[in-house]
Amino acid sequence: MTNNPSQPNWEGYSCPMPLQHTSRIVLGHGSGGGMTHDLIQRFFLPAFENPILKAGNDGGVLDMLDGQRLSVSVDCHVVWPLFFPGGDIGRLAICGTVNDVSAMGADPKYLTAGFILEEGLTIDTLQKVIASMQIAAEEAGVSIIAGDTKVVEKGKADQMYISTTGVGVVRKGLLVGGACAQPGDQVILTGSIGDHGMAVICARGELGFTGDLVSDVAPLNWLVHTLIDAVGDAVHVMRDPTRGGLATSLNEIARQSGTGIVIEEHAIPVKPVVQAACELLGFDPLYVANEGKLVIIVRADKADQALEAIRACQYGKEAVRIGEVRDSPKGMVLLKTKYDSQRVVSMLAGEMLPRIC
Amino acid sequence: MTNNPSQPNWEGYSCPMPLQHTSRIVLGHGSGGGMTHDLIQRFFLPAFENPILKAGNDGGVLDMLDGQRLSVSVDCHVVWPLFFPGGDIGRLAICGTVNDVSAMGADPKYLTAGFILEEGLTIDTLQKVIASMQIAAEEAGVSIIAGDTKVVEKGKADQMYISTTGVGVVRKGLLVGGACAQPGDQVILTGSIGDHGMAVICARGELGFTGDLVSDVAPLNWLVHTLIDAVGDAVHVMRDPTRGGLATSLNEIARQSGTGIVIEEHAIPVKPVVQAACELLGFDPLYVANEGKLVIIVRADKADQALEAIRACQYGKEAVRIGEVRDSPKGMVLLKTKYDSQRVVSMLAGEMLPRIC
Repeated sequence: MTNNPSQPNWEGYSCPMPLQHTSRIVLGHGSGGGMTHDLIQRFFLPAFENPILKAGNDGGVLDMLDGQRLSVSVDCHVVWPLFFPGGDIGRLAICGTVNDVSAMGADPKYLTAGFILEEGLTIDTLQKVIASMQIAAEEAGVSIIAGDTKVVEKGKADQMYISTTGVGVVRKGLLVGGACAQPGDQVILTGSIGDHGMAVICARGELGFTGDLVSDVAPLNWLVHTLIDAVGDAVHVMRDPTRGGLATSLNEIARQSGTGIVIEEHAIPVKPVVQAACELLGFDPLYVANEGKLVIIVRADKADQALEAIRACQYGKEAVRIGEVRDSPKGMVLLKTKYDSQRVVSMLAGEMLPRIC
Repeated sequence: MTNNPSQPNWEGYSCPMPLQHTSRIVLGHGSGGGMTHDLIQRFFLPAFENPILKAGNDGGVLDMLDGQRLSVSVDCHVVWPLFFPGGDIGRLAICGTVNDVSAMGADPKYLTAGFILEEGLTIDTLQKVIASMQIAAEEAGVSIIAGDTKVVEKGKADQMYISTTGVGVVRKGLLVGGACAQPGDQVILTGSIGDHGMAVICARGELGFTGDLVSDVAPLNWLVHTLIDAVGDAVHVMRDPTRGGLATSLNEIARQSGTGIVIEEHAIPVKPVVQAACELLGFDPLYVANEGKLVIIVRADKADQALEAIRACQYGKEAVRIGEVRDSPKGMVLLKTKYDSQRVVSMLAGEMLPRIC
């Protein structure tokens, strides 16, 4: 293996937001938004400096000696409650990592799973989560090849946490990543936003009604596979907008690539029940987590073909074009509102929904 | 990648111990001993069934298309307290995974790290842990190529947990693993046992004195590299006796390979301060965790050469031959005591020292 010098990186990146400086970890440091980025920039990146990590994508890409490239990604899952409409921590742990590996243009093949169990967790609960992981792994076609189980005393965890690392083989000749977005590229979203976050909030009983809120948690590797079969290296960026939502993912991409991304509010699908729940709680769906959606940035001349391929997939039927990449304003995301005005969409600053994934 | 059909497996394995059956997770399920094995056998393996996982080693080995093989391993680290004489959770997180990958005959190259942080953790503590990880990663020559950070509410974790997954390239032509032990092989231990476990207990203030107890936590990849350079495929098994200690690791190997392992009490190095602390608390050093030691099972004709190579390494100066592999009693470990009697050494059954790694 050798490092990949061709990877884009975060050099010169600086966070334009006023951040809450503190001497202690607060929930916002886990939001996936501005505070998480600040934490990474200030403490993790300087210590673990290497070109793969600095690329700032959801997965690292390794060059093997024979020209094969591997995509490797890690996620810790601390979602509360463990079970929610449409999924549970087990399905989430498989899909979250499968999707991060896929988003680097790879076919995920192997997963490791580490379990931190709280003393007193029922074996029944553990079994249900394992069964759900098994189903999700089968759907995604991945094998869990190594595992670890630790138990902590009652009160030192919240039932269970699962961390998963995925390994996949990157398609030959493909280079995708946040820095690869180019002016003129089209922005595709594979379906409606906010479903996962609002389903989990609903499961917490914070809405006062149950409604039809269902998480979208799903493995997207077959969709990615189909897309790349269809348009190959016309795909420049793929990212699953989880914590921090669509707004945060687009901001990351705009910064990594030094481009401006303009999206159209009317084009972004939000289910009425999600919209209603968001209004009730004062949330903007642009910032609510998704677990079965991808933002795909693709060369303009292949956008129609890409959309067609995505729509043929189980989890891409409602895919739409939501905007485009421009030269400027560099590192920023603009939203054309339904009223034809324009506003800046910033990265999620603090924490909106802790333990959403 | 393809699965590796040549891997040994746990088929037909059955746990000979009476296990505490319960409807809830107890600390013993995280001991690394009999109850952990039972949990894995009953719930994880049937669900995630595949030959790599079933091999029952500390790391999975993947066959790549070009004949290159990768070793992949995962560990969750929940040690308490975070800092102890000789190390901390950060050094442990790097070394634990480096050693598991190395034990499959691989050169570890890449790590992923997932952090679960408790709200209220001081940034100062986080920085110290990150700095320690950086030093250990540099010593081992590994890069952290992907990370994830989650924050949970105060009281839902104990300061911080770290899970690490490692990826390394297995040396060409090498097949090591618990099932590869053969009658006649010699058993080498790279140094004294019990240092890590007793250092952590000491840091908890449970001994009432501080003494000179220092954890042995160290990356063993250079030692493994040197050993394989010296004796190549004469190395049949390598395992780091962490949770559950030397006794548990040897029992795992005896079961995986269907051999009997006989070790000599007088040959097993235990530091006087460790022995004293164990006696004070009623512990048997054979079951106390190590984080910088390897059990190495090697073809008899290469044992001297192996010992010489190991002793030339920083972390192998006190390596000794402690026993040998026999035809029988199959799946068991026998200890020749200092008084020339023999007794069965079983796997750790319950939990002795929770959160030791």
